[in-house]
Amino acid sequence: MPSYQAPLKDMMFVLNDMLELERYRNLPGFADATPDLVAAILEEAAKFCENELAPLNRIGDEKGCVRHPDGSVTTPPGFKEAYEKFVEGGWPSLTNPVEYGGQGLPHVVGFAFEEMLISANMAFAMYPGLTNGAIAAIYAGADEELKDRYLPKMVEGRWTGTMNLTEPHCGTDLGLIRTKAEPEADGSYRITGTKIFISAGEHDMSENIIHLVLAKLPDAPKGTKGISLFLVPKFLVNDDGTLGERNPVTCGAIEEKMGIHGNSTCVLNYDGAKGWIVGRPNEGLKNMFIMMNAARLGVGLQGLALSEVACQNAVAYAKDRLQGRALSGPKYPDRPADPIIVHPDVRRMLLDARSFNEAARALGLWGALQVDLTHKAESQEERLAADDIISLLTPVIKGVFTDMGFDNCVKAQQVFGGHGYIREWGMEQFVRDARIAMIYEGTNGIQALDLVGRKLALNGGRALRTYFGVLEAFMKEAAGEEGMDRFLEPLERAVKRLQKATMWLMENGMKDRDNAGAVAVDYMHLMGLVALGHMWAQMARVARRKLAEGAGDSRFYENKIRTGEYFMARWMPETRARLAKIEAGAAPIMALADDDF
Amino acid sequence: MPSYQAPLKDMMFVLNDMLELERYRNLPGFADATPDLVAAILEEAAKFCENELAPLNRIGDEKGCVRHPDGSVTTPPGFKEAYEKFVEGGWPSLTNPVEYGGQGLPHVVGFAFEEMLISANMAFAMYPGLTNGAIAAIYAGADEELKDRYLPKMVEGRWTGTMNLTEPHCGTDLGLIRTKAEPEADGSYRITGTKIFISAGEHDMSENIIHLVLAKLPDAPKGTKGISLFLVPKFLVNDDGTLGERNPVTCGAIEEKMGIHGNSTCVLNYDGAKGWIVGRPNEGLKNMFIMMNAARLGVGLQGLALSEVACQNAVAYAKDRLQGRALSGPKYPDRPADPIIVHPDVRRMLLDARSFNEAARALGLWGALQVDLTHKAESQEERLAADDIISLLTPVIKGVFTDMGFDNCVKAQQVFGGHGYIREWGMEQFVRDARIAMIYEGTNGIQALDLVGRKLALNGGRALRTYFGVLEAFMKEAAGEEGMDRFLEPLERAVKRLQKATMWLMENGMKDRDNAGAVAVDYMHLMGLVALGHMWAQMARVARRKLAEGAGDSRFYENKIRTGEYFMARWMPETRARLAKIEAGAAPIMALADDDF
Repeated sequence: MPSYQAPLKDMMFVLNDMLELERYRNLPGFADATPDLVAAILEEAAKFCENELAPLNRIGDEKGCVRHPDGSVTTPPGFKEAYEKFVEGGWPSLTNPVEYGGQGLPHVVGFAFEEMLISANMAFAMYPGLTNGAIAAIYAGADEELKDRYLPKMVEGRWTGTMNLTEPHCGTDLGLIRTKAEPEADGSYRITGTKIFISAGEHDMSENIIHLVLAKLPDAPKGTKGISLFLVPKFLVNDDGTLGERNPVTCGAIEEKMGIHGNSTCVLNYDGAKGWIVGRPNEGLKNMFIMMNAARLGVGLQGLALSEVACQNAVAYAKDRLQGRALSGPKYPDRPADPIIVHPDVRRMLLDARSFNEAARALGLWGALQVDLTHKAESQEERLAADDIISLLTPVIKGVFTDMGFDNCVKAQQVFGGHGYIREWGMEQFVRDARIAMIYEGTNGIQALDLVGRKLALNGGRALRTYFGVLEAFMKEAAGEEGMDRFLEPLERAVKRLQKATMWLMENGMKDRDNAGAVAVDYMHLMGLVALGHMWAQMARVARRKLAEGAGDSRFYENKIRTGEYFMARWMPETRARLAKIEAGAAPIMALADDDF
Repeated sequence: MPSYQAPLKDMMFVLNDMLELERYRNLPGFADATPDLVAAILEEAAKFCENELAPLNRIGDEKGCVRHPDGSVTTPPGFKEAYEKFVEGGWPSLTNPVEYGGQGLPHVVGFAFEEMLISANMAFAMYPGLTNGAIAAIYAGADEELKDRYLPKMVEGRWTGTMNLTEPHCGTDLGLIRTKAEPEADGSYRITGTKIFISAGEHDMSENIIHLVLAKLPDAPKGTKGISLFLVPKFLVNDDGTLGERNPVTCGAIEEKMGIHGNSTCVLNYDGAKGWIVGRPNEGLKNMFIMMNAARLGVGLQGLALSEVACQNAVAYAKDRLQGRALSGPKYPDRPADPIIVHPDVRRMLLDARSFNEAARALGLWGALQVDLTHKAESQEERLAADDIISLLTPVIKGVFTDMGFDNCVKAQQVFGGHGYIREWGMEQFVRDARIAMIYEGTNGIQALDLVGRKLALNGGRALRTYFGVLEAFMKEAAGEEGMDRFLEPLERAVKRLQKATMWLMENGMKDRDNAGAVAVDYMHLMGLVALGHMWAQMARVARRKLAEGAGDSRFYENKIRTGEYFMARWMPETRARLAKIEAGAAPIMALADDDF
């Protein structure tokens, strides 16, 4: 069975040495987040994830969730008890607002914790993950009465949350939704319709479930401008905070899926369920997008987290499995064969994953820091810059992390040879679980369209200018520093390719929008490689500085540099192929008539 | 539920128009293979695959194989009956030797049939597929008495075959096997040991199962030079051909796998089972490799076949699913939304698969033709050239088809959005089934090492020279022809990159063998893209000729050219990145110490 060890050292390297969180001590929430406290929290979190959640991961996959004839759902053995410990440990409240009982710690710390949760048990992590998203949407959009009634219990983790968008006939195109909301005399609404693919939609882990539901008011405008957001609790909540009657929102079925069996993916039937509007009528997508954007970063994190745990287990196997001899002659002559880690092709698969993981962790944490700065930075200018960067990078983190993370899980499975295909080894579960992250919260194709069609153009291209500014400032600053050319040269080449691709898009995407759609995914991946390469160059620079300062554990910093050099040498050449594909444009893609497919 | 329609038209295009099978009418077996007969056979085969096998594919996945307490195994509902029809239809004997009751048709025809079998039901197709491999090994290596006793029933399909290599502690490194074979006074051997991952190892579909087993004689030399091959029947066969007593080879367990649940993957325990040697003592690997080489081509075909059926279903879904509007404005304004096939990114995923499928089919069939020519061509020179080419391309077909085929299945699943993750749609099964093909019959890493470490150097590099000769002759012949530059230019660039990579390997792979290991997979994929690009250039040329001749169905030929142009524009740029990775060499891969992973 796979095991998991939280990459604490690497996380602390990013938080303390690269991001230098101490620099932000003057900001709300950051003052409490001293390196010692953060280390203590993450160490405690690691123990919980390693010892309580990871052992349930296989059970969750094997047993799955069970729906009973009365519509109730039982989660896999151990999940309910683990969730109880999770709540008792105060984990749900970590980064949530202080005024509703949260600890108000920075998101960047919560992000590190969330990576561990997912690596240990992705299906489990989705329950609190969705709750956090629902909290963010309610916090941003609901009136005070709703917030006071729902948020404290959600922040505590006693109640969990869900997001309800998809219907049988519509997923990506939310303009088509049919679920309706009819106003009642008391200011509430009666919600009727069917929602599908609702993660954590019904289960036995929490006392109440708070559904956030997209629906249409009578006479709402057509399309996406006529969608409103509603809060629909499983149990109505009395004025004294106790639970009242059961709302008619029921689980019609649990989906049989490829993976994440430990999470109950439900068909939810709303039969005139009582709900309350969150935000203004017909502006539901705006508030749902607050949840969606947080969720997209969380899904991106799933790509990284599964790549991390899959890679860890592949490393352990590669060190243990004796098979054949090194091409250059026996390296462990006292054993009947060499461990397969001596083989370059095995190392290639491991290093593909590892060199991605470390850069993705840095990029994810940097991104999460931008989320904090968007709300908390001192100047309006800094807030805007942070918002620009995270708006631009959210689809990249979601799309690129999940694509590359899935590929890495496949590679980690490959290291096991035939055993990787056998269920009991657990590697194929990582592949099946990781697969969903490329699809939900907007498929990766939709992420690419969001990037190319919306984010690039936003505010006259300001976000992209801000981001190129960050890249150029860094490259200028680091230029000429010893040992940095192995990082800066490939990074500069890649940045130039990204600029060239952007120019191409500006020239060709306007006059024929199919050009934008055709190259979107390649552009997203090109930007992802630039962003990851940027992280590596930064980390290498920090590691060099640490070595120069004579910091302890020089091996850690040396290996950091070596792993980065691998990334620059073997991942960055992909930027060439991406640019060439972009420059091929829409013509080869659109040449066939629809009927000729 | 997915459906399947055999790509007959495309197959006939390759067989008749591109390979021009009629040119080989003077060769044994080919005379009977007139275009009309081949078309009739494949049409009949298509009906069988579409109507009998495809409907069992999901059932096979859901129900799997069941092992009973007595060690017997039941295949999924319908498999036994379908296999009975398969045998009654005479399908097992299609390409098998006439002297043992086979029809002796060319392999190239059998290969087209096999693609259909796998697309329709991969788990089912493995039973006859392994039988064919076992027939080939027995035919090549066993003495007349063994052949006469076993081959007729195997050719008829009444008995099936297996290959037994892997043991719990050894897969790739066969030198480590422990199964032992002790000689008996009657010339037979007593086989004792445990074999794992034995596909079709025990089941209820055939009257007898003929296991080909690698084992060691007492005092055999160490390593791979001390391995012999044995034929071990499930039931002993009396002199009159009737079945005798049960041999002590039993199924200890069925593996729980990620996919191909319809195939029984067994742990087989040999408890002094009676066996007969195939070929000479300690030369077992030689004959097993006859089976392995055939099996590797068959596994490569699995990559293509699943990519084909997955793509077919994704096309149907993309035409049917209404969601959003084309970026350039509504294309189907009378419908509530456009079908998603209007979106460039959806088309990209479909065309990635389709443009691979058509080229891979051509390459696979050309490769199968080389297998025929290796045995049947008139001159020794032609035989040698054919053998060179198929020896060189076997690891490429296995490794590249299964890597790309799996990726295409993932893309086809992606077209379905959330529905692609739900079991009932069947798309995730294609992904799970396709995954094994990258692993078994030698992982793709091993294929790449076979190519770079063995095939390139064989006979002083003769095979590679032969292959480059074929490429250059073609490019020279087609040069200057109208409309061909979109094919020839990218092909020439890719061939140059392959030559450059080969030079790099010759210079660096000798002095440091880790360099060869480090770049092997990239080299294999670079050669694969060259080979597929070569096929597209040939097919485009044929299609142009057909159009010029005013052949009917001009749409088919025009679309053939467009699909090829897509491949050249969007797949071929990958060759750049592959070369850049190759030139990075082993250094970044070997920099970390084993302990630092």
